[in-house]
Amino acid sequence: MDDIVVDIGGTQLRAALYPSEGLQPRVFKAIPTSGEKPALERLFDLIESIWPTDTKIRCIALAAPGALNPTTGITYTIPNIPNWNGLHLLELVQNRFKVEVRLGNDANLAALGEWKYGAGVGHHNLVYLTVSTGLGGGIIVNDQLLVGANGLAAEVGHTTVLPGGPMCGCGFPGHLEAMSSGTGIANFVKRELAAGRQSVFCSNGEPVEARTIAVAAKEGDELSIEAFNQAGEFLGRAIADLLHLFNPTIVILGGSVIKAGELILAPTRRSLNASVISPSYLEGFTLTTTNLGDKVVLVGALALARG
Amino acid sequence: MDDIVVDIGGTQLRAALYPSEGLQPRVFKAIPTSGEKPALERLFDLIESIWPTDTKIRCIALAAPGALNPTTGITYTIPNIPNWNGLHLLELVQNRFKVEVRLGNDANLAALGEWKYGAGVGHHNLVYLTVSTGLGGGIIVNDQLLVGANGLAAEVGHTTVLPGGPMCGCGFPGHLEAMSSGTGIANFVKRELAAGRQSVFCSNGEPVEARTIAVAAKEGDELSIEAFNQAGEFLGRAIADLLHLFNPTIVILGGSVIKAGELILAPTRRSLNASVISPSYLEGFTLTTTNLGDKVVLVGALALARG
Repeated sequence: MDDIVVDIGGTQLRAALYPSEGLQPRVFKAIPTSGEKPALERLFDLIESIWPTDTKIRCIALAAPGALNPTTGITYTIPNIPNWNGLHLLELVQNRFKVEVRLGNDANLAALGEWKYGAGVGHHNLVYLTVSTGLGGGIIVNDQLLVGANGLAAEVGHTTVLPGGPMCGCGFPGHLEAMSSGTGIANFVKRELAAGRQSVFCSNGEPVEARTIAVAAKEGDELSIEAFNQAGEFLGRAIADLLHLFNPTIVILGGSVIKAGELILAPTRRSLNASVISPSYLEGFTLTTTNLGDKVVLVGALALARG
Repeated sequence: MDDIVVDIGGTQLRAALYPSEGLQPRVFKAIPTSGEKPALERLFDLIESIWPTDTKIRCIALAAPGALNPTTGITYTIPNIPNWNGLHLLELVQNRFKVEVRLGNDANLAALGEWKYGAGVGHHNLVYLTVSTGLGGGIIVNDQLLVGANGLAAEVGHTTVLPGGPMCGCGFPGHLEAMSSGTGIANFVKRELAAGRQSVFCSNGEPVEARTIAVAAKEGDELSIEAFNQAGEFLGRAIADLLHLFNPTIVILGGSVIKAGELILAPTRRSLNASVISPSYLEGFTLTTTNLGDKVVLVGALALARG
């Protein structure tokens, strides 16, 4: 019996067919989320297109960004798919394919994937943070995925780290996502440039985004270095707070911003070490990066399917 | 079979003997924590003094403030009892009385008490905050007490809510405890008075502490009202962050500062409602105050003994 997992992203729907054991998908397929047909039909078509002819499907596990309730299977707000607000996604997929369907938030499932198959194997208390366009989190408490009463827990990106600070994409000021995500890093550089700061971006014509800022920082652009330092400072302090709240033995970082390596990791570690209230929190503690790469959400959905 | 519970406070050791059912103690006794004999011997004497002659003891449950590991039974740092750092408290009490001994952080056990016997009965995801001289927390996740890898979790008071803000008792700046505890409220008024602000405290000769500031605020002193408003603003935003992280159905407030009633509760509610990123977090959610009063830690230790 195989499992089908789908990572429902704002730009891509990515699906994989997994055998009952191992992490090697039999089939992997990705299509754009938007197109002529509505997203739900595109999802149905994608699942159908990788449905095996030689075996049965045990479970379909869906990972989606944004707010959703894994128990009721209802999606509240899914970025870039506005007409899924209030959608009974789990029920609709179940009715269509007549197999068990499970649903989870993508960052939550990434944490589950790291715990079951990745850098977090053997840990009982784990935090996963994805630092990308946004900033999401997933938390394992005592070998259980933390979802809270309505599945809305672990929204680490939307905790206030600087009262009155820059506006977050969600419309509230000073959230961690506004300080340490790729968007936050780019917005900081844009604000400084608008205020007259000098930088290679004044002349190089590159778009101001986390990826190009990382390149500029590595070439010595001071504003770009400062942008990553500030992002790391807030990220490290937020990780310290997560240690004070959850006392995990591992925090795993993933997402495109973390691919900038020491540029973001060095200030993050520095800030974490300077902010932890007692060395006891760092005994037997590891701060590391994902080893599941771009497949972390798919592997997390697989962990949900098999769990 | 009865249980003995002890609330090990910085100023008092409070012990109670409970029958196997109900919340009415058969005996209650409190003695000062410090005296001629060392604290551990005072604890032994206290337990012995309430030991029943008519029945056996099933369990001794100890609640202590500060950092400790409930699994190993070792106390790291206990406020006002400096020579308990690194003490094998659980083992020592077990060896002395030859019955099962359990140990927990006092704010954590208060959460357990509220969940099992108090305002939190029937809730699966619960946060308890004690706002007093310090600010402590206890969290129930999916019907389990959150303790983390080494028992150091739920230190809500030591999360950073204002980078570079006033110094916390722990030596780090801008913690919630420094903004919203009784000490934080008093320190705010002291700083403002030192900066030349006018207030009844300039002439009334009262000591500047949370209790007297509450009285002054109720009599219309603007600085005192502002002190409670600011404390509530930070407390409400911190509760919003706890909703984003834990998605509980109830947050219960206890401790001496909360006895100031609407003076602290009104700004807290206002700030919470203004800071929650989605109304979904407030659906079926209750913010309330403890109904176990000063016995909340004893009742929590009882829940640990019976659990």
